[in-house]
Amino acid sequence: MKHLVTIQDLSIHEIDDILKEAQKLALTSTPRESENILIANLFLEPSTRTRFSFEAAERNLGFHVLNVDEASSSMTKGETLYDTIRTLEEIGAEAVVIRHHQDRYFDELLGKISIPIINAGDGCGNHPTQSLLDMMTIQQEFIVTQGLNVVVAGDIRHSRVAASNAELLEKMGANVYYSGPREWIPEHCKKRYLTMDEACSTADVMMMLRIQHERHVDGMNMSKEEYHRRFGLTLDRECRMKRHSIIMHPAPVNRGVELADELVECSRSRIFKQMKNGVFVRMAVLNWALDRIKEESTYGIAAEKR
Amino acid sequence: MKHLVTIQDLSIHEIDDILKEAQKLALTSTPRESENILIANLFLEPSTRTRFSFEAAERNLGFHVLNVDEASSSMTKGETLYDTIRTLEEIGAEAVVIRHHQDRYFDELLGKISIPIINAGDGCGNHPTQSLLDMMTIQQEFIVTQGLNVVVAGDIRHSRVAASNAELLEKMGANVYYSGPREWIPEHCKKRYLTMDEACSTADVMMMLRIQHERHVDGMNMSKEEYHRRFGLTLDRECRMKRHSIIMHPAPVNRGVELADELVECSRSRIFKQMKNGVFVRMAVLNWALDRIKEESTYGIAAEKR
Amino acid sequence: MKHLVTIQDLSIHEIDDILKEAQKLALTSTPRESENILIANLFLEPSTRTRFSFEAAERNLGFHVLNVDEASSSMTKGETLYDTIRTLEEIGAEAVVIRHHQDRYFDELLGKISIPIINAGDGCGNHPTQSLLDMMTIQQEFIVTQGLNVVVAGDIRHSRVAASNAELLEKMGANVYYSGPREWIPEHCKKRYLTMDEACSTADVMMMLRIQHERHVDGMNMSKEEYHRRFGLTLDRECRMKRHSIIMHPAPVNRGVELADELVECSRSRIFKQMKNGVFVRMAVLNWALDRIKEESTYGIAAEKR
Repeated sequence: MKHLVTIQDLSIHEIDDILKEAQKLALTSTPRESENILIANLFLEPSTRTRFSFEAAERNLGFHVLNVDEASSSMTKGETLYDTIRTLEEIGAEAVVIRHHQDRYFDELLGKISIPIINAGDGCGNHPTQSLLDMMTIQQEFIVTQGLNVVVAGDIRHSRVAASNAELLEKMGANVYYSGPREWIPEHCKKRYLTMDEACSTADVMMMLRIQHERHVDGMNMSKEEYHRRFGLTLDRECRMKRHSIIMHPAPVNRGVELADELVECSRSRIFKQMKNGVFVRMAVLNWALDRIKEESTYGIAAEKR
Repeated sequence: MKHLVTIQDLSIHEIDDILKEAQKLALTSTPRESENILIANLFLEPSTRTRFSFEAAERNLGFHVLNVDEASSSMTKGETLYDTIRTLEEIGAEAVVIRHHQDRYFDELLGKISIPIINAGDGCGNHPTQSLLDMMTIQQEFIVTQGLNVVVAGDIRHSRVAASNAELLEKMGANVYYSGPREWIPEHCKKRYLTMDEACSTADVMMMLRIQHERHVDGMNMSKEEYHRRFGLTLDRECRMKRHSIIMHPAPVNRGVELADELVECSRSRIFKQMKNGVFVRMAVLNWALDRIKEESTYGIAAEKR
Repeated sequence: MKHLVTIQDLSIHEIDDILKEAQKLALTSTPRESENILIANLFLEPSTRTRFSFEAAERNLGFHVLNVDEASSSMTKGETLYDTIRTLEEIGAEAVVIRHHQDRYFDELLGKISIPIINAGDGCGNHPTQSLLDMMTIQQEFIVTQGLNVVVAGDIRHSRVAASNAELLEKMGANVYYSGPREWIPEHCKKRYLTMDEACSTADVMMMLRIQHERHVDGMNMSKEEYHRRFGLTLDRECRMKRHSIIMHPAPVNRGVELADELVECSRSRIFKQMKNGVFVRMAVLNWALDRIKEESTYGIAAEKR
């Protein structure tokens, strides 16, 4: 069974295939031939962007969608996550997309569930489809990632994407740097630390992260204005960026904090492009997961579930 | 870009076209040729009737639907309305239907959003599709609106439809009168005030409004029984209505308050007919908005977004 | 008008037809020819399993679905259940599936609503589609129900299915016994009471019920461990069950309380099979209800609503 719970589940070759498929879908957006496929979205933590991006992807592919959302999560009280997913499987879901507040919620599930699990974010852990859409966005700008300077800036410690993006970028030959408040920079990242001023003159890609207020046990010990001045992408800093460099952010943006309000849709910004790419990447991932089942089924592995 | 945020966005000619289309859809309910169109419903205030009426309209037309409802509204916390709508646009929504508790929430959006905004109600402000469905219901009864006596009765000050209905009716030659508690009658309406007893003998159309309890800062200073006796449509008053006159109400009805329980489905009542018409009007409005985009696109205006 | 609000609404002949249709659907799952049918799901009490089972059934049949869920239930505040359903009817719903916390909520509706009501559970009352799926599951194991020993064990007093299952099973010739805490056994069931140890050696079908914590006015007066030891299906008791006997449970299971954790997916367990069958039974019930309307319509009864 092929799940996508961390970016490590994919070989470089598979990532390449998925991104090519996503680029192709961006042009044509072809639905799968009507196969009456049901997909369950199990979102046990608030999410606008990712949830609706997956739902749009599913609808574009012509799937039926079961949304088990926050409100329903109170329904599942007293039932284990495993039993909920087994229920969705018996009801006929052919894949389940899960967002969960708990890091690595999927560890207890793998090997026990016969439909693919697509991780849509776990706690401060992983968010593989975000990493893929970020990569797709970078590849649309830079044909060669070898030697590219990417600065990941902001709330790195609480970010679901910082670590897997960095890993993936390095695998593809990019130079990854880090910026932001030092207390949010994990130990192993500190040797590649840049101040925001250094970052701006270095970066080909400036990847700003959202402050994860909801994951900070103690509040932030500075005002939003101070954060913006010290660690944010100000109008002033943007002026000093390299000519062809771009700005990315996974959104939702705290306008005026991580970056200046005016920069959200400036010519360097690829923020809304990232959202658009997200739909195509998720379509490609869903196709990938369902095709893997078919193959396994054809070769007689785990075929009993279909 | 053609939005529908107030009834003023439509010329009399366009209103006429939309209502004709709605009447046609009432007979056939033809879906658009399958175009894989995604519509987002962004309901940031509770609503049963309008929300499900729009959703039924969208499904009848064969659209895919993204519901961003109350529960999801807590998700969008910290994100501007503009950013939420831009996200929905990037995700692929081709129009967005919005209900919002804030009067004229759309002022900050117009000119900045490239997909049509269909207003499904803003605070105490506008509710253009309700005005259209009311007009459709009146036209089904009275071929000529010239000289028709319409009494709008009840909570006029807090009603989203009273003002735009009155404006539209006057434009079409009807005589509009007002009734209800004097403290709920805006200054400019007072010269056309009738008591409920006068209203009953005058009205061809008795348009009762719902008491908007949720919009009253201080509670109502009389009992429901007293309201019904003084300002409601009692069984006794109904007997004194003109032979061909009809009763309308946007619902939900407070039974026994605005009108007697027994009158909700009496032979004069068009209340459930209004709901039925609502679906067809919304289908016609969605078609109108999407056709406008196509035209603009054909003529090269705002074509870059498609 | 044919509603399905209690299992008494169905003759043995109709039950037989529905179960045969469900078995057929389990093999082919054919959608109805695209008729652009809209079904409303009105769930005014939390439910994962039943709600999503109905939704999957509806989508499998190719229907459009309007979900009026818990969150929306707060929207309908101040509106009667009758008015809400009439609204859904006017909006175009051709059947409405209802779960409601109040026993026999449907009594005030029957005879007044022109679309079929499918009861998805009322308070401690009825849950006819659960009875049907239980019967389907039993029939898959035992061709003859005549003389079959079925033990219903657990929270019988608060169970929506115990009474109707027992009635149906007896009609079909099975011997029904009861087990569980004596204070939860209704008076008329006491003469067929077995201890859990007796039950295990007697039962062909061991039908465990979920403890309905949410319906207990006063808490349970024993620990979960004590309940499991005295009234639960322990690993030890399972060993003493008859060779071909099966275990059923409507789920969600309180693992380690009603039955041992390890038994949920043991070889005797049909718990997940029941969930799977639920989708097919609900497809068959929806088909049955919609076909009845068509027939009535053909024979001129209640034809005015279509």
